[in-house]
Amino acid sequence: MKANAERVIRELKELAALTSDERGAQRVAWGPIWRKARDWFTEKVRRELNLDTRRDGAANLWVTLEGKSKNALVMGSHIDSVPGGGWLDGVLGVVGGLEVLRRAKEAGGVPPITLHLVDWADEEGARFGRSLTGSAASAGALDAVKELSHLVDRNGVRLPDALRENGISLASMATARAYFDGLNAKAYLELHIEQGPVLEEMKKPVGVVLGTMGVERYNLKFIGQAAHSGAAPIHLRKDAFLAAAEFALACRDISIKYSGKTPKSRVVATCGVVKVEPNFVTAVPGTTEISIDLRALDGKVLQKMLADAKKASEKAAKKHLVTVEWSSLLQISPRPFDETLMKFVRTSVKEVTKSAPELPSGPLHDAAEMAAIVPTAMVFAQSSPGISHTRFEDTPLPALEKSIRAFLLTVDKTVEHLAKQ
Amino acid sequence: MKANAERVIRELKELAALTSDERGAQRVAWGPIWRKARDWFTEKVRRELNLDTRRDGAANLWVTLEGKSKNALVMGSHIDSVPGGGWLDGVLGVVGGLEVLRRAKEAGGVPPITLHLVDWADEEGARFGRSLTGSAASAGALDAVKELSHLVDRNGVRLPDALRENGISLASMATARAYFDGLNAKAYLELHIEQGPVLEEMKKPVGVVLGTMGVERYNLKFIGQAAHSGAAPIHLRKDAFLAAAEFALACRDISIKYSGKTPKSRVVATCGVVKVEPNFVTAVPGTTEISIDLRALDGKVLQKMLADAKKASEKAAKKHLVTVEWSSLLQISPRPFDETLMKFVRTSVKEVTKSAPELPSGPLHDAAEMAAIVPTAMVFAQSSPGISHTRFEDTPLPALEKSIRAFLLTVDKTVEHLAKQ
Repeated sequence: MKANAERVIRELKELAALTSDERGAQRVAWGPIWRKARDWFTEKVRRELNLDTRRDGAANLWVTLEGKSKNALVMGSHIDSVPGGGWLDGVLGVVGGLEVLRRAKEAGGVPPITLHLVDWADEEGARFGRSLTGSAASAGALDAVKELSHLVDRNGVRLPDALRENGISLASMATARAYFDGLNAKAYLELHIEQGPVLEEMKKPVGVVLGTMGVERYNLKFIGQAAHSGAAPIHLRKDAFLAAAEFALACRDISIKYSGKTPKSRVVATCGVVKVEPNFVTAVPGTTEISIDLRALDGKVLQKMLADAKKASEKAAKKHLVTVEWSSLLQISPRPFDETLMKFVRTSVKEVTKSAPELPSGPLHDAAEMAAIVPTAMVFAQSSPGISHTRFEDTPLPALEKSIRAFLLTVDKTVEHLAKQ
Repeated sequence: MKANAERVIRELKELAALTSDERGAQRVAWGPIWRKARDWFTEKVRRELNLDTRRDGAANLWVTLEGKSKNALVMGSHIDSVPGGGWLDGVLGVVGGLEVLRRAKEAGGVPPITLHLVDWADEEGARFGRSLTGSAASAGALDAVKELSHLVDRNGVRLPDALRENGISLASMATARAYFDGLNAKAYLELHIEQGPVLEEMKKPVGVVLGTMGVERYNLKFIGQAAHSGAAPIHLRKDAFLAAAEFALACRDISIKYSGKTPKSRVVATCGVVKVEPNFVTAVPGTTEISIDLRALDGKVLQKMLADAKKASEKAAKKHLVTVEWSSLLQISPRPFDETLMKFVRTSVKEVTKSAPELPSGPLHDAAEMAAIVPTAMVFAQSSPGISHTRFEDTPLPALEKSIRAFLLTVDKTVEHLAKQ
């Protein structure tokens, strides 16, 4: 089957024109522009594939092309975006999947196995703060009542009311897992923009994703004693900020210690939130809160990093005569992808680009939820510049075209593999 | 003349009862409780000394006891407090000075030289942010229109309106210097609580102040690039917070490098304000603002510290691939005290406490303004605990009593010295 990447790119531009403004993509989940984007998708599916879309109880939007075998491949990503997002983040995988179905239709209409394409609902969590909502529901990893019922957006709208406006409810979300189980999925594939600078630095247009990193995220509170900047001698100070500063630098060292030399073995550590009290120019900081976000693909490495970070926080606290308290914010286990599917990705990327660079994904994706219940793999398109959640996020057109071709090839190999089972 | 420290302590308690609540002293300058405290003082002066108080154009409150010689000694401090301040901060020196006048009256009524006692207006700057207002006006170091006309308190009251409520104006402030010049002051003495832990650590009740430290205060802005905590590899990050953290720790090292082993040669460096952007748990900080407050009694040392801090900021910026911009907040030159007067303080403290520990003052005092125009010295009473601007700030009674006696002795020696001139 011939890959038609140009058609995919044309459609991506069409959707961007329809749902972006001068600040970027505006397809925020549960809102009118998101629904407009989904209507565009549904209409396209109807007109070009003569197929209907279906929504499960979590508002995930499905298209199914029945094949000769009941074994099914699920392809998916998300149409929703952050406010002012990039034109490719999410939709690339959805429109790329549409091309797979179109090719299959053009090739006779009945593929060797059943093909499902899904547009996951609310991957970004931009409005209510809970990301991967739809895919987590399908994976049975969402307790909607417990996790979602209390969420409220900036305008005071409750999440349950936003769901009602979109024809679903907290209760219906629990049915998404059964819907997924009925698909007989044997594999999940996703094409996504990298959202980082790794492939750009390697000068590689397309990458093989090894899995999504696990996350250990905490808030630390260093507690010392506020004092006058002139009156308190250095050796008598209990400076909570200096302890936090030592900790942050130690965490950087920890990430370097546990990182291998290649992108595939990299780990990261980030202190993103810093809050100093009393925050006066003439006051030695009495307390400092600081967040730490540790990520690694290898769960054992992640736990070693966490243990080292704990030791570093105690050492820093001791040095500056302060105490430190840890409180947990988030734990996500690493989701390494399926070896067989990764082999197909590797071969496909190599066929298209002559090499197959491997990297883990630091950001989470719907594929992370899928990896827990079905063999999963991902293809990354290079980001350039390597920044995300901004209208500047982009993939150079030659790289974009190659990433689509590599994804289509990966699907072909996966279909062929599953057809034999 | 016999020292009556107990009477001073009794009066301090009386004023505290009149002008404090459960959160501490509430004598904030320009407000009703401050005026009530000054009325108490004026009434006491009238009743016990049969003298009138006078206000200069900056609302500094003066009492004058004419002496045989026109040579005059000025004693002073401030009745105003921060909201919820300590019971001794400022008033100790005013009520201590009152005791000097009372003793002189009891001893015959005409001292060898003229004695002036002043309650400086708005030493704390608690309401409008400009401290040392009254003493700076008397020293000719205040451009009231330029420095004060735009100031507004938290409730939106303009400083000029608060002055009007207190019977003065920006214009009248300019007359305070001429008032001071008319006093023929040959020396300025001030008794104050230390507001820090140095004397407590040395186990000394009373200290000889060497001068007030100079201050170099700046705001630094480290500018990097915000990035996703999962997507950005460590070596490609431009983490503005890590650069600020390195800088803060380097400044601590600088203060240790330039500090001598004794309290008299100590210097300090403080990063009190830290502001990180975007301040998300999943975002590598793109910018970080951090304040630096450097203090030393030796001006040359202070300039070396500043040069080292600038180098440290550039090194930190380079290491973390960010840039740094400095902007000035405040420069105050060191104010070393007068050698002759310090000798009197030293001898007096030694007579009362058997030793004469020396230390610079990190916090500023009205004495710093006076030191620029007249020979000046200060006596410190121990703080225990060594914290300030809180109701917990205190001086143990035996130390308080000794500090008052040492101050009265210093006055005696100074009067004797000036009477000979």
